[in-house]
Amino acid sequence: MCLQFELEHTDGAARAATLTLTHGVVKTPVFMPVGTCATVKTMSPDELKEVGAQIILSNTYHLYLRPGHDLVAEAGGLHSFMNWDRPILTDSGGFQIFSLAELRKLTEEGAQFASHIDGSRHLFTPEKVMEIEQALGADIAMCFDECSPYPAEFARVQQADAHTLHWAARCQAVHQRRDQALFGIVQGGLFRELREKSARDLVKMDFPGYGIGGLSVGEPKEMMYEALDYTTPLMPVDKPRYLMGVGSPDCLVEGVARGVDMFDCVLPTRIARNGTVMTPDGKLVLRNAEYAHDFRPIQEDCGCYACRNFSRAYIRHLLKADEILGIRLTTIHNLYYLCHLMAEIRAAIFADCFQDFRRQFWDRYKM
Amino acid sequence: MCLQFELEHTDGAARAATLTLTHGVVKTPVFMPVGTCATVKTMSPDELKEVGAQIILSNTYHLYLRPGHDLVAEAGGLHSFMNWDRPILTDSGGFQIFSLAELRKLTEEGAQFASHIDGSRHLFTPEKVMEIEQALGADIAMCFDECSPYPAEFARVQQADAHTLHWAARCQAVHQRRDQALFGIVQGGLFRELREKSARDLVKMDFPGYGIGGLSVGEPKEMMYEALDYTTPLMPVDKPRYLMGVGSPDCLVEGVARGVDMFDCVLPTRIARNGTVMTPDGKLVLRNAEYAHDFRPIQEDCGCYACRNFSRAYIRHLLKADEILGIRLTTIHNLYYLCHLMAEIRAAIFADCFQDFRRQFWDRYKM
Repeated sequence: MCLQFELEHTDGAARAATLTLTHGVVKTPVFMPVGTCATVKTMSPDELKEVGAQIILSNTYHLYLRPGHDLVAEAGGLHSFMNWDRPILTDSGGFQIFSLAELRKLTEEGAQFASHIDGSRHLFTPEKVMEIEQALGADIAMCFDECSPYPAEFARVQQADAHTLHWAARCQAVHQRRDQALFGIVQGGLFRELREKSARDLVKMDFPGYGIGGLSVGEPKEMMYEALDYTTPLMPVDKPRYLMGVGSPDCLVEGVARGVDMFDCVLPTRIARNGTVMTPDGKLVLRNAEYAHDFRPIQEDCGCYACRNFSRAYIRHLLKADEILGIRLTTIHNLYYLCHLMAEIRAAIFADCFQDFRRQFWDRYKM
Repeated sequence: MCLQFELEHTDGAARAATLTLTHGVVKTPVFMPVGTCATVKTMSPDELKEVGAQIILSNTYHLYLRPGHDLVAEAGGLHSFMNWDRPILTDSGGFQIFSLAELRKLTEEGAQFASHIDGSRHLFTPEKVMEIEQALGADIAMCFDECSPYPAEFARVQQADAHTLHWAARCQAVHQRRDQALFGIVQGGLFRELREKSARDLVKMDFPGYGIGGLSVGEPKEMMYEALDYTTPLMPVDKPRYLMGVGSPDCLVEGVARGVDMFDCVLPTRIARNGTVMTPDGKLVLRNAEYAHDFRPIQEDCGCYACRNFSRAYIRHLLKADEILGIRLTTIHNLYYLCHLMAEIRAAIFADCFQDFRRQFWDRYKM
């Protein structure tokens, strides 16, 4: 078995579980930092462990284009290539093709696109994506899917869901790695009928875990929460549920409240590179003049390397001077904050006080 | 006493000593990494210790302009501001005014210049520079000096040396910090007569240590070695000798051979950010295609974090994808290489085999 999921405790819809994968154990709910190009931007593997990262995500689309999955396989797979010995999840490239690349042609066969790097033409089919993800060798691979944009009409989402379903079957048919778990992806946009159909269809196929795709693509947060409210109850209790592309602190709390186990997002690392840090009170924009003489740490009670060693004034100076240590420190803080937020949530679930935790979170958090 | 210099062993002109400063002990010969803006580019203080940095240099000109020496003083000085508890040396800003800034007016009084950041006008006098360096609070401060360019005519160098000498006296007159050592700077360009005069004049003033300035400014290396050959014998045996702005491996070996104790240079960190690494065989340009499938470390026998954990192929991928971890790893390697080269030189001096070491270095090193 390349995946074991032990549901340990529930508190309302919120769940705490242990997910055992080929490269180690993941305690859920969990936030997965994103290492797009086989590196979580600015971070070393040692630092990732120090901030509490249990599993990271890497992007199939990017690694296929550069350095190429063949090179990664030649290096012994992604773990060996990037020297990360804990679990990895690779996405399917679907989202990137429909957002980052220039989509040229989309059929039942697959998606033809032009690279965002050099404009070169490529075709992703479910079979090709499985070849790539198996070469990368992550612990969890995602099925190739079509992610509908927001807003999208019913008929368009329905068509995308049909692709997603057929492609999931083709992925399942060719996937062979015994040390890698293949997850299906529930789509359906923001149409309850379509999302329920997608969930039922995918669940029948008995994947060891499921992504929830097509949310956090521009819709109001309330619509995402509503979609989760009717989607997660249709998903198996005994399998992990992964809400794709979600990573703001409030959405993590609300996702867990609706039964989600896993999350990933570039948000904490991306805003860190703009000098924005996450705290229990909301965001701080450290480049602002108000922090020039502020010799307090980013967050008084934080145990991260940045907060233990440096002041807001120093980090602001680094950011203003375009010094790399500045964005290293903001990245470390944001990832530490999210990983520890998830650990606190897990503890609250075990203590049967998740609702109190959620209320206290919202009392303090400013959007 | 804010500086103690114990000459422990000599081997020919090469010297091994222990330099005790306010923030700790430095074993010489020593290479000082450069932290221009209160950070050694890409590095954390912990990593600097891990590569073997005993003392770092920071730039008075840059810190004066941004974030300002008043802010650094408010933070409790440079050590506290950047969280570096080992010794620091600050330069005088002279070299930057004559190279980086736009020099507007140069008189016996001082140097008026326009900032390279925003064009704002400033005046550096010896008194002003002492105010700034004392506010920064490094273990070693350098006197404000005028560095002649290469090539320069005799009369021009003579005039610059007169400024340097008068300014050294004014610096000495106003410098008050008892926990900070003030070094004089020997100038004289590449004129033996002028360099000998400068050395004799400065030595009379009894500074606790001396910089050798105005070398490595574009002249052929042989001319620099020749200048050292006639300059270091005029410098006190019982005081540290610091060759300013020199940091290529070959120049470090040749500088030590001529009796130099301390060196600094942006070279290892700057070329690292272009993807170039230093090895005993010379430089490697890691972006080159020949390293795409090279799964060996940068340097087989190297103990640095980069060489212990990552391949040339992976680091090349990071550099090609503009990932910050790439230039972090090349910076770590280059600083480790230079710090450990100096430690090997020191061991060779104690073992009375520095000439063998130097010969073996040159047998392997390709320029």
